[in-house]
Amino acid sequence: MALDVGVIGVGMIGQEHIRRLDGGPGGSRVVAVADADAERAAAVAGQLPVAKALPTGEELIASDAVDAVVVTSWGPTHEPYVLAAVAAGKPVFCEKPLATTQESCRRIVEAEVAAGRRLVQVGFNRRYDPAHRALKQAVDGGAIGAPLLVHCAHRNASVPPHYTREMSIADTAIHEIDELRWLVGQEIVAAQVFTARKSSRGGQLQDPLLVLLEMADGVLVDVEVSVNIHYGYEIRCEVSGETGTVELAEPAPVTIRREGTVAGLVPADWRERFALSYDIELREWADTVAAARPPQGPSAWDGYVAQIVSDAALRSLSDGARVAIELPPRPDLYTPTATP
Amino acid sequence: MALDVGVIGVGMIGQEHIRRLDGGPGGSRVVAVADADAERAAAVAGQLPVAKALPTGEELIASDAVDAVVVTSWGPTHEPYVLAAVAAGKPVFCEKPLATTQESCRRIVEAEVAAGRRLVQVGFNRRYDPAHRALKQAVDGGAIGAPLLVHCAHRNASVPPHYTREMSIADTAIHEIDELRWLVGQEIVAAQVFTARKSSRGGQLQDPLLVLLEMADGVLVDVEVSVNIHYGYEIRCEVSGETGTVELAEPAPVTIRREGTVAGLVPADWRERFALSYDIELREWADTVAAARPPQGPSAWDGYVAQIVSDAALRSLSDGARVAIELPPRPDLYTPTATP
Amino acid sequence: MALDVGVIGVGMIGQEHIRRLDGGPGGSRVVAVADADAERAAAVAGQLPVAKALPTGEELIASDAVDAVVVTSWGPTHEPYVLAAVAAGKPVFCEKPLATTQESCRRIVEAEVAAGRRLVQVGFNRRYDPAHRALKQAVDGGAIGAPLLVHCAHRNASVPPHYTREMSIADTAIHEIDELRWLVGQEIVAAQVFTARKSSRGGQLQDPLLVLLEMADGVLVDVEVSVNIHYGYEIRCEVSGETGTVELAEPAPVTIRREGTVAGLVPADWRERFALSYDIELREWADTVAAARPPQGPSAWDGYVAQIVSDAALRSLSDGARVAIELPPRPDLYTPTATP
Amino acid sequence: MALDVGVIGVGMIGQEHIRRLDGGPGGSRVVAVADADAERAAAVAGQLPVAKALPTGEELIASDAVDAVVVTSWGPTHEPYVLAAVAAGKPVFCEKPLATTQESCRRIVEAEVAAGRRLVQVGFNRRYDPAHRALKQAVDGGAIGAPLLVHCAHRNASVPPHYTREMSIADTAIHEIDELRWLVGQEIVAAQVFTARKSSRGGQLQDPLLVLLEMADGVLVDVEVSVNIHYGYEIRCEVSGETGTVELAEPAPVTIRREGTVAGLVPADWRERFALSYDIELREWADTVAAARPPQGPSAWDGYVAQIVSDAALRSLSDGARVAIELPPRPDLYTPTATP
Repeated sequence: MALDVGVIGVGMIGQEHIRRLDGGPGGSRVVAVADADAERAAAVAGQLPVAKALPTGEELIASDAVDAVVVTSWGPTHEPYVLAAVAAGKPVFCEKPLATTQESCRRIVEAEVAAGRRLVQVGFNRRYDPAHRALKQAVDGGAIGAPLLVHCAHRNASVPPHYTREMSIADTAIHEIDELRWLVGQEIVAAQVFTARKSSRGGQLQDPLLVLLEMADGVLVDVEVSVNIHYGYEIRCEVSGETGTVELAEPAPVTIRREGTVAGLVPADWRERFALSYDIELREWADTVAAARPPQGPSAWDGYVAQIVSDAALRSLSDGARVAIELPPRPDLYTPTATP
Repeated sequence: MALDVGVIGVGMIGQEHIRRLDGGPGGSRVVAVADADAERAAAVAGQLPVAKALPTGEELIASDAVDAVVVTSWGPTHEPYVLAAVAAGKPVFCEKPLATTQESCRRIVEAEVAAGRRLVQVGFNRRYDPAHRALKQAVDGGAIGAPLLVHCAHRNASVPPHYTREMSIADTAIHEIDELRWLVGQEIVAAQVFTARKSSRGGQLQDPLLVLLEMADGVLVDVEVSVNIHYGYEIRCEVSGETGTVELAEPAPVTIRREGTVAGLVPADWRERFALSYDIELREWADTVAAARPPQGPSAWDGYVAQIVSDAALRSLSDGARVAIELPPRPDLYTPTATP
Repeated sequence: MALDVGVIGVGMIGQEHIRRLDGGPGGSRVVAVADADAERAAAVAGQLPVAKALPTGEELIASDAVDAVVVTSWGPTHEPYVLAAVAAGKPVFCEKPLATTQESCRRIVEAEVAAGRRLVQVGFNRRYDPAHRALKQAVDGGAIGAPLLVHCAHRNASVPPHYTREMSIADTAIHEIDELRWLVGQEIVAAQVFTARKSSRGGQLQDPLLVLLEMADGVLVDVEVSVNIHYGYEIRCEVSGETGTVELAEPAPVTIRREGTVAGLVPADWRERFALSYDIELREWADTVAAARPPQGPSAWDGYVAQIVSDAALRSLSDGARVAIELPPRPDLYTPTATP
Repeated sequence: MALDVGVIGVGMIGQEHIRRLDGGPGGSRVVAVADADAERAAAVAGQLPVAKALPTGEELIASDAVDAVVVTSWGPTHEPYVLAAVAAGKPVFCEKPLATTQESCRRIVEAEVAAGRRLVQVGFNRRYDPAHRALKQAVDGGAIGAPLLVHCAHRNASVPPHYTREMSIADTAIHEIDELRWLVGQEIVAAQVFTARKSSRGGQLQDPLLVLLEMADGVLVDVEVSVNIHYGYEIRCEVSGETGTVELAEPAPVTIRREGTVAGLVPADWRERFALSYDIELREWADTVAAARPPQGPSAWDGYVAQIVSDAALRSLSDGARVAIELPPRPDLYTPTATP
């Protein structure tokens, strides 16, 4: 039941996923890699016990040695690779975003629907974070009654100079967009973006933003997006329900008393904060596809919907108005099943 | 330097303030009480060492025995009593709201300006809560850089059946309206109210609400107002700045491990949560007016502005649109002084 | 029902108590002060509305103008002043320690018993700290079942160079000695002191210590005493019972996120940490004695017993052995009453 | 570089370790199992892809198919199985305790020393818990200065009726004994056990205990051992140093506000609390031995020393006296290396 995986795109996140998959869960192995930078592909393959560097992603997907594909290449290349994997009938794990435009995402959904079975999983790792799972468990278990409001904060210590306010939505807040659909179990029906006083730390960048999302059953969500907040990386979320609330606790494992403070350490970045969630995400994915079962994680449909909502928020960002969201009908392939 | 106080309106909050003032700070005494219910006034006076029950608030204000007046009567009566005290040249502490309409508040401001000196203080007790003071101290001290966003939650365990969604603004969120002006040191320039999924716990009441406030320098504030949240009474506030954030800590004095949880107790209501803030508020007021100095707390102007903002939020509540707020020019009498 | 107080010893703590009492609870006033340093007495009196500086403590106690006495002079002078106040039939609040030797304390107890009524209160302020009261309330209310073990830590940022390891017991741990008797409602029957690795921060001082106390019903207590721990002043206490535990929560009013940490501020010293407890302690004392009722706080007997336990711990400190404690019979005057 | 593992003893903990190892890190597989209960062995083997049930542990160790051995059988059988594995030159992971007597442990150490290389690892999982690692990292990194005192609590919700006070030391506190040597980097030179007021929840069982440990450099440790505390399973540890302290934070991933409390959930038992530590422990062990490197975790020497300290504590438990501990000389094989 070992799983032989091919990885397309072996930059930082690709190499991290290789480390998780090679000799990992269920006896998975990385047997092939490909990268736009052939030298890098060769170097990475050279450090793995059984992996070969292949010239292109297309050849990797076509290779008989490859059971399943991981796409961690540059965003604009996601669509062709995922479509090729679907065409080849191979399970494919694609890092978020599924693709960089709604139309790309729609074509992937249509291809998968035409193929008649679930092959695609999108790398929305929040769903695998134990703290987020505990959050959902508390909500689903009725600890706070029906959820009514959600407060989120997505904070990065800093972003590179080329970062734009559009990326604060499409690259950053998109995590909350997927998370909230999963957490509340409802679609998002409108988005509106407000700009706050501009931080002086980001040059021309309009930062922070406040994103307001309305869900189908009326749950109202506000998301602070601060991408230059200096003190560290932090994800906060409180769900306010009819009889109580539940929120993410501080993730710091120890409390230090020193120099006049009682303090927990804040993660420096998302790699530190979410390392365990990636481990779980890829272990569950590899276990599932190795067992020839359809992937249970975020689907192509989820990737498509996240893109639609993100686009609506971007439209609101440009003119400030509330943007109502109408989703296309959900294909039967993506009907949620009873299993968790 | 003892202060002889008269109290108009001796219901629950009136009696609590009497307990704080009689034989209290600076040797203050309650020497007279008045109430629409003469029997109640007599009963309360009977339990105090030196207080007399007077037939009307007007007579109380006019009495030579009374140095300073506390108004804790029914809201609609605030205006005439405060105006009478100002006319008599006596310091007056008026529970919030200063008055129930903008026009009433404006007339009080005009009367005080005409009198040429500060006599009125409004009972916005948040400014006296040690935790809120620590919050402001952290912000003012630069611990988080310039403030950019604020998240607040104002939660009541329950409200009586006659409570309306308008009261969620005018009686409840008005505390945040005053607090934010004080905390951030800026005026509020726009308000917008969003309704969330309706809690099933409040009958016809639209609860919770999300109130969005924009401040003059761009700071953006969202306030969750949940008035039927069952689990207890809680005030939350996090100020998100350029380099960090500061938020109110849990006020529970002890942590109890029992029955599978590590827990702090939540106050049942605002009386429990803010008892100390009222003590400090009235002590500082009595000390100040006993020393013949102008009151340093929330002014008639603050009461007037809070009413203007509250009215704007109420307008937004009725039609959902953003309401811009234009304040009248601030009379010189209310220019902030250098002292804290 | 105003209370006219005389204060003997107007150093730092004396002046703080004067501030709390003059024009304070129940209309209390400071009408006389005395100090070994006559100039200081005159200076302090000069700043008070109605106080006179008297040449000696004895004259202050004898003065007809003085209803009740506060003793905040140097420890070795406590005994004669308290005895004189008892002889004069005047209520006396004596800062801890009641006296510096067991024999002194015993003579005070005997004098009070001979006088036939409670006049003396000792300044063990922990019993008035709201957090410690919440701790006791949780224990007494059965939240954790019967208490079995207690862990305490008493930490000072630093101590002056003349501080000795004996003072770590007699001046520092004595607070826990009184607190534990009150908290658990049992006498301490044995003490043993252990020395830990010596901190390099205190020169020759043996710091920290671990004090083990056994209570009559078997409850076992360990107290860390660290008097040079640099990071700040902190009092910790966790009571471990049959079904759970309760501990003091962090007292920080706000949580600050900055520079890689999520932190609460630690008080710098006991003045900052316990300011409110002193307010409550003196208010309750003044209210009680102004009403001509016997003081309800720590009694002369409590002061005497604390001294006996402290002496036992000092004996253990010198030779390391466990020291059993036998108390003299408790005079009926000190039988606990049903009222809290 | 796959590792073929044989597991002796397939009760609960054995089955959990099988789940972690089969198709796990580095391509490890469970190829053989043995159990005193042959039916159980067969049943467990039947659910694994490639495992055979062998009649005895000895045959399993001797089998050519087995690269490395995991011993999770009943404590008294540990010695013969570990000795057999050492004799066979095979790496062996033995659940704690290494063996049930000092002499058994000594014989294992001698056998390993005679074999001339490290083959044995003992299952002290605390060293793999991320929170305990963060604790050690803070201490080693100098965050609190030199450690001087340590407070620990080891709490179980309940224990079975056959549990004895000796097991509170030998089965329960033994985790702290190993942890403290690792955390502080010093040997334990004396132990003393104190009995506290007996909980009424454990029948005849003397519970809780307070264990005092002295380390070579004077660090003083107290360990509360409460095995029937009902509220849940919790491990607490605070290291108090020259300039500050560090302690384990609450492990709860979310904070729930409901029914008058702000609460985190407490794990029900050690399985829930330490699941991740076992994952890491076995992953690191399998990775290390698969790479033909000596195991880096707790050694046979660590198992032996823990047993010596535990025996000293048991002697103190029987008579209450302090027991000094003299360790035999440490064989060179166990000299700590520079690598972490």
